Amino acid sequence: MQSAHVKSADTNSGRARNLRRLLKPRHVCIVGGQAMEDSIRRCADTGFGGEIWVVNPKRSELGGRKCYASIADLPEAPDATFIAVPREPTIEILRALNAAGAGGAICYAAGYAEVGGEGHGLQKQLIDAVGDLAMVGPNCYGILNQLDGIALWPTGHNGRRVESGCAFIGQSGNIALNVTANDRSVPFAYVISSGNQVILTVADFVDALTEDPKVSAIGLYIEGIDDVPAFSRAAAKAMQAGKPLVALKAGKSALGAKLAMSHTSSLAGSDRMYDSLFERLGVIRVDSLPQLMETMKFVSTAGLPKGNRLAVFTCSGGDGLMTADIAEAIDLPLPQHSPAQVADLRAQLPNFATISNPLDYNTSLWGHEDLLTRCFDTVMAGHYDAGMLVIDYATDGEASEQAWDCSVKALLTACKTNGKLPIVTATLPELLPARVRDLVIGGHGAPMQGLKEALCAFAATERFARHRERLEKDGLDGITVPPTPKPTGDGHLLPEYEAKQQLSAYGLSVPDARVVAPADAASAAAALGFPVVLKVAEPVLAHKTEAGAVAVNLKSAADVEAALERMAASLAQYKPGAVIAKVLVERMVADVVAELIIGVKRDPQFGMALVIGAGGILVEMVQDSAMLLLPTDRAAIERAIDGLKIAKLLKGYRGRPAGDLSAVANAVAAVAAFAESHRGELLELDVNPLMVLKTGAVAVDALVVLAEG
Amino acid sequence: MQSAHVKSADTNSGRARNLRRLLKPRHVCIVGGQAMEDSIRRCADTGFGGEIWVVNPKRSELGGRKCYASIADLPEAPDATFIAVPREPTIEILRALNAAGAGGAICYAAGYAEVGGEGHGLQKQLIDAVGDLAMVGPNCYGILNQLDGIALWPTGHNGRRVESGCAFIGQSGNIALNVTANDRSVPFAYVISSGNQVILTVADFVDALTEDPKVSAIGLYIEGIDDVPAFSRAAAKAMQAGKPLVALKAGKSALGAKLAMSHTSSLAGSDRMYDSLFERLGVIRVDSLPQLMETMKFVSTAGLPKGNRLAVFTCSGGDGLMTADIAEAIDLPLPQHSPAQVADLRAQLPNFATISNPLDYNTSLWGHEDLLTRCFDTVMAGHYDAGMLVIDYATDGEASEQAWDCSVKALLTACKTNGKLPIVTATLPELLPARVRDLVIGGHGAPMQGLKEALCAFAATERFARHRERLEKDGLDGITVPPTPKPTGDGHLLPEYEAKQQLSAYGLSVPDARVVAPADAASAAAALGFPVVLKVAEPVLAHKTEAGAVAVNLKSAADVEAALERMAASLAQYKPGAVIAKVLVERMVADVVAELIIGVKRDPQFGMALVIGAGGILVEMVQDSAMLLLPTDRAAIERAIDGLKIAKLLKGYRGRPAGDLSAVANAVAAVAAFAESHRGELLELDVNPLMVLKTGAVAVDALVVLAEG
Repeated sequence: MQSAHVKSADTNSGRARNLRRLLKPRHVCIVGGQAMEDSIRRCADTGFGGEIWVVNPKRSELGGRKCYASIADLPEAPDATFIAVPREPTIEILRALNAAGAGGAICYAAGYAEVGGEGHGLQKQLIDAVGDLAMVGPNCYGILNQLDGIALWPTGHNGRRVESGCAFIGQSGNIALNVTANDRSVPFAYVISSGNQVILTVADFVDALTEDPKVSAIGLYIEGIDDVPAFSRAAAKAMQAGKPLVALKAGKSALGAKLAMSHTSSLAGSDRMYDSLFERLGVIRVDSLPQLMETMKFVSTAGLPKGNRLAVFTCSGGDGLMTADIAEAIDLPLPQHSPAQVADLRAQLPNFATISNPLDYNTSLWGHEDLLTRCFDTVMAGHYDAGMLVIDYATDGEASEQAWDCSVKALLTACKTNGKLPIVTATLPELLPARVRDLVIGGHGAPMQGLKEALCAFAATERFARHRERLEKDGLDGITVPPTPKPTGDGHLLPEYEAKQQLSAYGLSVPDARVVAPADAASAAAALGFPVVLKVAEPVLAHKTEAGAVAVNLKSAADVEAALERMAASLAQYKPGAVIAKVLVERMVADVVAELIIGVKRDPQFGMALVIGAGGILVEMVQDSAMLLLPTDRAAIERAIDGLKIAKLLKGYRGRPAGDLSAVANAVAAVAAFAESHRGELLELDVNPLMVLKTGAVAVDALVVLAEG
Repeated sequence: MQSAHVKSADTNSGRARNLRRLLKPRHVCIVGGQAMEDSIRRCADTGFGGEIWVVNPKRSELGGRKCYASIADLPEAPDATFIAVPREPTIEILRALNAAGAGGAICYAAGYAEVGGEGHGLQKQLIDAVGDLAMVGPNCYGILNQLDGIALWPTGHNGRRVESGCAFIGQSGNIALNVTANDRSVPFAYVISSGNQVILTVADFVDALTEDPKVSAIGLYIEGIDDVPAFSRAAAKAMQAGKPLVALKAGKSALGAKLAMSHTSSLAGSDRMYDSLFERLGVIRVDSLPQLMETMKFVSTAGLPKGNRLAVFTCSGGDGLMTADIAEAIDLPLPQHSPAQVADLRAQLPNFATISNPLDYNTSLWGHEDLLTRCFDTVMAGHYDAGMLVIDYATDGEASEQAWDCSVKALLTACKTNGKLPIVTATLPELLPARVRDLVIGGHGAPMQGLKEALCAFAATERFARHRERLEKDGLDGITVPPTPKPTGDGHLLPEYEAKQQLSAYGLSVPDARVVAPADAASAAAALGFPVVLKVAEPVLAHKTEAGAVAVNLKSAADVEAALERMAASLAQYKPGAVIAKVLVERMVADVVAELIIGVKRDPQFGMALVIGAGGILVEMVQDSAMLLLPTDRAAIERAIDGLKIAKLLKGYRGRPAGDLSAVANAVAAVAAFAESHRGELLELDVNPLMVLKTGAVAVDALVVLAEG
């Protein structure tokens, strides 16, 4: 059930312009009947200042508004239209809108390609009718634009007007609806239910929303990305604009991936590739809806952190401990106070207090805003980027909340005085009342609900900011993913010697070798120097070891002759009638520190993905590998190698010799360069193993399959 | 600042009886001044039916009640007293209560041993005054008993009366206060802030609460457990009663452990030992306060699952995907529907629907309670133990909630019809209103807030129930942790041969060996059979390899002689003047499948802990080991071995030979038995490596240190 896609890569295209009209419409139009009555009223109630038109040929009035009989009767071509009629008439309305020069349209109807059968034909008609229209859907809830008070949405929702905020794009309408109902003060500027994405995709929305100065971050619920290059361009644009993308990508599990395929026709892709893609693009990946919302709220209320130095205040040892535990688990350091600060704090707190970060300011300061402000100021004047107060409003009524407010106000004051970012966090999400959240937002702070969510949001947005700084130096073009044409022709396995020679031209080290007739093997070995490795070169075999076509550590001419005899016998058994025509004689590589594997996979969505992994049986069992989408660069390669568990061994573990890390990076870079130059035809590549030495790194086997076309 | 502890191991002791009086008092007494006025009124307001007495020598009335001048003036010795006076007079009040034969007392005051200095002396006086009283604290908030409407608590709180429910015991007063304010319908029968635990500890409370038929589960916020044997006995009792302990143990991180030490005087202990302890005792460990509360709510409302077969219903593909992803991540299988069910469901749902578990019943059934009931019934009639509806009340007001209620009611009906456990879960914790939670509780279901929390609560409580079934067969005594006396005398390193002989007596296989004079080494080797390993036996060396005192793979008498010469030279350098007096000659072990390490650590809190780990450099890097507290049994040993990453290799990975798993378990059991027999004096034990063979497993080196006393 793969859907046909029409992409708007060019932001100056008619469709791209129409999408911008749809997002900031001067007039909206609703096409539908009785079921849309409430929606029409809601659209007016939320304070939209432009025109609201209703089209219904059978009625004179709906939702308190005059009905037009057709699109052609409207005063003007509408910027935004919500179409709430069945799937067949929807096609006609789209055709009329396009003919009239309308902007965008929400296609609420379902029943196109996703239902199979006759739906495929209808979807073709739909695409044909759309023309340049910016169509959302089909099978979606539409768009809430809460900057301008516009609800192009079929049901009740809980959206509230905002001055600025974040955007949410959900491939699931239900999840898009749920996020509008949050009790977390997430300021949603836009909520978009993207539906089946037959025309407009997440990439198009991100591209357009990134340009809106009132949008600070974009949250995504994604089940699959069909056009990875387009998504990567939009994400690079968002990164450049300093607007984090925060993604909840479902379908991680085997069952989830299967369900994603079946119900949205999305290509599932390998979850690992999504990880690589998000890492490359600086997309913040989250694993829950609350984490998604808290991260978006963080950016929308407090902005991006200037650094990761966080000071934490609690009025409970327990809260401090829980904070310390989570911080360590997510690799967020909690720098300790300076000796001068410690001395100052010791003078302010009782003698039994523990002066540390997190700081348990304890009940002796509780309720005293002046003392709290002084205490927090002492800390925030130091080398911190942000201050987090952990507090739960476990009050027995609003009247008693004043004592709690003292701590919140003191934090806001201390952060303001010192130009630091304030964060107020409840350990139980429900224990930060809306009134207090408003107080925090008023002080340019982030009101966070959930301790782990708060710490993760801070850490992830800070990493985003650093990633952006790095990319601003290196250029953002490098992170986009180029298109990968589908190769024509069948796969063709290069002979090992040729594969190695080709890779060697890109900088990969390979052993000294000769390809000779069997009769010349012993003399070739002597010329290379013993010990040698002998392999059957002709016939070309994909699985030499299984065929008994490899012999290692041959120390003399006699060893070589004996090995040749064994090989001939094995080959005859493996492939009856086959005769060894040529052999590859290679110098044996000795004193190996570690074995690595470098592979390149070709993926229809993600293009070329390079995998670096530890070789050898034990490490293979613990799945020690890193993936990089191509093209990549030296810095990314070095980070990937450094992240492997085997990196410890490569750096000289427990007195063992260290491997040549620079040579490993060179080898990976050579493979990456070769793969990138053969993007059109490379089907499969494996360097296995790459022998890492004290000096150098040598590829002792290489498999390359190219498309013949 | 280690506090002195007085334990009530015997539940028939005076203190144990007094604790039961404190938890179910006939009369409560409050000793304090103006600050307690609100607390006195609250205690009456929550509907406690017994006597409430106030002691204050300076006032005639407080909180609307007559004041008694002293404890001696009270009509009777009170079952429960809240003492809210400073630390010195608190001691006098305790003395008077004890003299009068009172039950229990909350010591709200702080400033004893935890502040150091003069606090130590006061703590001694406090302990002396307490006598048989069941004292909670000091430095605590006290007890909320919401079964009987009793608040022995100094501040406002949000507790509500319940008929039955769970108990919470918090080492942090602030966290105990916060949980009372949850908006999650967690039915708290008891909330106990245990403070510094100078007299009563978590173990005492668990022991007593376990006996209360109205308590279904006990939640713990723990920073450290000082008396592990007592805790293990209480946990075993809770397990027997079918009441899960759910623990949030803080201080996991290095910083957290340090903070825990400083602010509650708790021994931090190794977090890993806590994991082993909890695993052994069936304590459900959680990593967040919301997870703690949701798990307790699950048990208190729906009880323990009968099995782990869960059917999930969503009205959104997205919710289904998120559920599948989390289920896989926590190893919870989602069994698929039977062919008959699939056929039946296909007839009920539109043809584009995907029939799977999770089942997206989709909007075609939405709002139709009859159709939903039929659909859910079709599933629940099958082989499932529980049914979970994932639904968020993203309504725009209570009026529109009826459509949502249809799904909830349908699930309750379908589960009731089929005798299955119903679960209703919101993905955003705030989107399950209190009214709906009551509806679910009324249908004996669990109203869960948070998708991951719901799935984890189901999986964890189901594992608890299975663990309990297993233990009911094997006996619960085995899981308690015996006391470990502190050994007297210094450590004494056994000579390797002797260590191996002693272990061999418990069933550990060791190589054939002789201890001989150097001159007899070659003939001993010949008698054993080549190849052999040669080691210096006398002098006894702790680090033979470093001393050059080990030679392996000696294939002839000449090899042995040459090795002896090298050893003598090395030893002379390592330990000037030392001469080889005796050597150990052992048969070399060949054809090794894998190397393991077995070690025993002695811990002042946890007693003896056995560690089984993979040997060899690569696996050491990835930290592949399991820990078992002693004593242990064969089944636990087998589970631990099976959980190692190297288990794959031991089972014959990728065509390699398999190791003798049964022999490995025998070896571990032998070490465990030896350690258990030497609980009084074993200081250190390491079998490194244990060579795992295709048949058998041989300890080629063993280090044993025993206390000399």
